[in-house]
Amino acid sequence: MKVKTNEGLMNYKTIWFDKENNIVKMINQPLLPHKFEIISLKNYKETALSIKNMTVRGAGAIGATGAFGLAQGCFAFRGNLKDFWKHFEQVYETLKNTRPTAVDLVNGMNYVMREMEIGDSVTECQKLALEAAQRFADEDAEHCRMIGEHGEKLIKNNSRILTHCNAGWLAFVDWGSATAPMYKAKRNGKNIFVFVDETRPRLQGARLTAWELSQEGIDHAIIADNAAGYYMKKRDVDMVIVGSDRTIGKTGDVANKIGTYTKAVLAKENGIPFYVAIPMSTLDWNLNSGDEIPIEERNPEEVLFAWGLDENGNRKKIRIANKDSVARNPAFDVTPAEYITGIITPRGIFKPNELSKLRD
Amino acid sequence: MKVKTNEGLMNYKTIWFDKENNIVKMINQPLLPHKFEIISLKNYKETALSIKNMTVRGAGAIGATGAFGLAQGCFAFRGNLKDFWKHFEQVYETLKNTRPTAVDLVNGMNYVMREMEIGDSVTECQKLALEAAQRFADEDAEHCRMIGEHGEKLIKNNSRILTHCNAGWLAFVDWGSATAPMYKAKRNGKNIFVFVDETRPRLQGARLTAWELSQEGIDHAIIADNAAGYYMKKRDVDMVIVGSDRTIGKTGDVANKIGTYTKAVLAKENGIPFYVAIPMSTLDWNLNSGDEIPIEERNPEEVLFAWGLDENGNRKKIRIANKDSVARNPAFDVTPAEYITGIITPRGIFKPNELSKLRD
Repeated sequence: MKVKTNEGLMNYKTIWFDKENNIVKMINQPLLPHKFEIISLKNYKETALSIKNMTVRGAGAIGATGAFGLAQGCFAFRGNLKDFWKHFEQVYETLKNTRPTAVDLVNGMNYVMREMEIGDSVTECQKLALEAAQRFADEDAEHCRMIGEHGEKLIKNNSRILTHCNAGWLAFVDWGSATAPMYKAKRNGKNIFVFVDETRPRLQGARLTAWELSQEGIDHAIIADNAAGYYMKKRDVDMVIVGSDRTIGKTGDVANKIGTYTKAVLAKENGIPFYVAIPMSTLDWNLNSGDEIPIEERNPEEVLFAWGLDENGNRKKIRIANKDSVARNPAFDVTPAEYITGIITPRGIFKPNELSKLRD
Repeated sequence: MKVKTNEGLMNYKTIWFDKENNIVKMINQPLLPHKFEIISLKNYKETALSIKNMTVRGAGAIGATGAFGLAQGCFAFRGNLKDFWKHFEQVYETLKNTRPTAVDLVNGMNYVMREMEIGDSVTECQKLALEAAQRFADEDAEHCRMIGEHGEKLIKNNSRILTHCNAGWLAFVDWGSATAPMYKAKRNGKNIFVFVDETRPRLQGARLTAWELSQEGIDHAIIADNAAGYYMKKRDVDMVIVGSDRTIGKTGDVANKIGTYTKAVLAKENGIPFYVAIPMSTLDWNLNSGDEIPIEERNPEEVLFAWGLDENGNRKKIRIANKDSVARNPAFDVTPAEYITGIITPRGIFKPNELSKLRD
C-alpha cells in the first residue's frame, strides 16, 4: 500500500524477500507512527528475533515472516542433503519458538516445508522453499485483496465506517482484512470517512490504523473508545468493519481485540451493520463455541503506562494511572455470532451461521 | 475522606475555609494521583483562578469554591455598606466569569447572596456570608452522605461494582456521588471490589477514582474502557454505579462523561443493574429530553496526547497517536432513561420516570 516518503508516495508491503542478498526486509512496526523505517534481517536468527520482539505483528505478516525466515535459513546452507534436513530442523524450531502460540507462524512454515519435501537435492530444496515462501506471502496479499473486492460492495458512497484496532495491511502482507474494503472503495472513487477507535490499551488504532489511512489519503478521525457509542447513537456511523484473531467456523463467534464485543453490542442496539473481515486462516473448526476460546491476559503495565514521543521527539514511557492501583488487562474478547451481520472472506460474504460452507 | 499521608491516615475534604486567616484551602487536583498537595488561596482572585485553571473540578466542589470565594471576598472588605455591595458585585462577577457555564458555581454563590441580603451592616453581611458558604459546603457533603446511605442498601456483600470516570469525593466536598454507596458499604463491613474504567481521554478513573479507592483501602482494578463489556459478559460485574452532570427530571435521561451510554447499553444487554447517583443540583426541569442537551466537544489534544510521570518523576506530555491524524473528542454522552435501573438521590432511590416526585 501507499507510504508517504521523502521520495514521494511509494508502494510498500509489510514484509518482502530480497533474493539476491538473502535478506528479509520489513517495516519496523514498533517505530510507527512516529518513524517509518525498513529493517533488513540478514539471517534466519535475526528474522526469528523480529517475530519474538514484535518488530512484526499481525497474523498474516507473522505467517509470511515464518515462511521467508525458513526459506532464508535453508538458502544459507552449504553441504549435503542429509545435513541440510538437520539444519532445516534447527531453523524451523528456532522460528517456531519465537511465539509458540502463533498459529499463522506454523502455518506459513508448514506450507513451505510441504512444498520442498519433494526436492531431491539441496539446491532444489532451496529453490522450492523460496518459491513456496513467496507464494505464501503473495497468497496472503491476494486473499486480503479479495476481501476488499467483496467487502467494497457493502460500502455506499459517502459511508461513515467505524473500525477497531488494526486489521490493516501492517498486520498482513498487503491490503489488510478490515481495511481492504475501505482501500478498494477509495480506489473505486467512493468518498468514505473512517472513525478510528484508538483501541486502548495498546492504541493500535491511534498509531497504526490512523497511520495507514493517512498514507492512503482516507479521511478519518481518531476517537476515544468511549466515543464510539456516542457516534453510533447519533447515527453518524453507517457500518462497522473489524478484523478477527480467531473465528469459530461452527458458530460464527469471533475472537478479536478487547472492545470488539462492546462495539458489536452498540451496533446491534443502534441497528448498524457489523461486519467482520477474515482471511481463511483464522477459521477454527475444532472449537464448538466462542466460549471455549481462552482469553490471554497481558501485562497490566499496558494499562498503567502510555508510550509515545515527548516534545523533543524522544520516545518516552510515562505512568498515567495511580501508582498504588493494579490493572487487569484482557487482550481479546469474544463477539457471539448473533451480533454479526456478515463475515467478509476472500471467498465472499457469509452469514455467521453459513461459515460451514467454507469447510473444505 | 481518608488520605494516606506521611503522618498516617488523615481525614480530608476537597475544599474548606480557614476562617482565622481568611484562606480557602483545597486539594490541588491536577497533581493527583502523582502528588497530594494542599493549596492555600489567600484572596478571592486566587480562588477564582483555582476554578478557571481547574485546580478544583467537579460540580459540587466548584459550587463550594464559589460560595467560599464569595465569602472570602466579602470578608476582606473594609468600608461602608454601600461600597460593600459594590465590592460584592465585583467579587461575584470575577468568580462567575471563571467558568461561565458551570451551573453549580452560580448556585453556590446565589445561595450565599440570598442569605446575606438581610444583613444591615458590613460586619453582619460578612458573618452571614461566611455562615452561608459553610452551610452550602456542609450540605453538599451531607447530600452525598445521604446518597451513600440510600445507595449502600443496593450493595450486597462481595459485590463487584463497575464505575466510570470520577464521581467521587474529589468532585464534591466529601463522599462523592457514585462512590458514596461504596464508601458506606466498606465502612459497614461489606466486602466489595470495584472495576475502575480508566475513562479516556482524560483518565479520571485511572487517576482520581483509583486514587480515592486506594486511600480508603477499597479493593479495585483499573481496566481499559474496552474491557468493561468483557467483564460484564463474563458476569464478573454485579452492578454499575456512575454519576451525572445533568439529569432530565421530566424523563430520567442522564448526561455524563463520554462512555457512560456505552456502559449502560452493555449493562442492559447483560442484565446488570445500572444506577446513577446524583445530588439534587444536577436535576434539570427545563429540558424535555436528553436529546436537547448540548454536547461539548473538547480539545482533540486530549485524545492525541497523554500526560503522566516519566521514570524520573517528571511530568510529561507525550504524543501517542499518528501525527497527521485529527481526533474528535465529545466530552459527554446522554444515556436514555430506558437503560437506567434506578437513580440514587439524597432523598432516596427512584425509577427514572419517578423523578417528578422530587420537583418541589
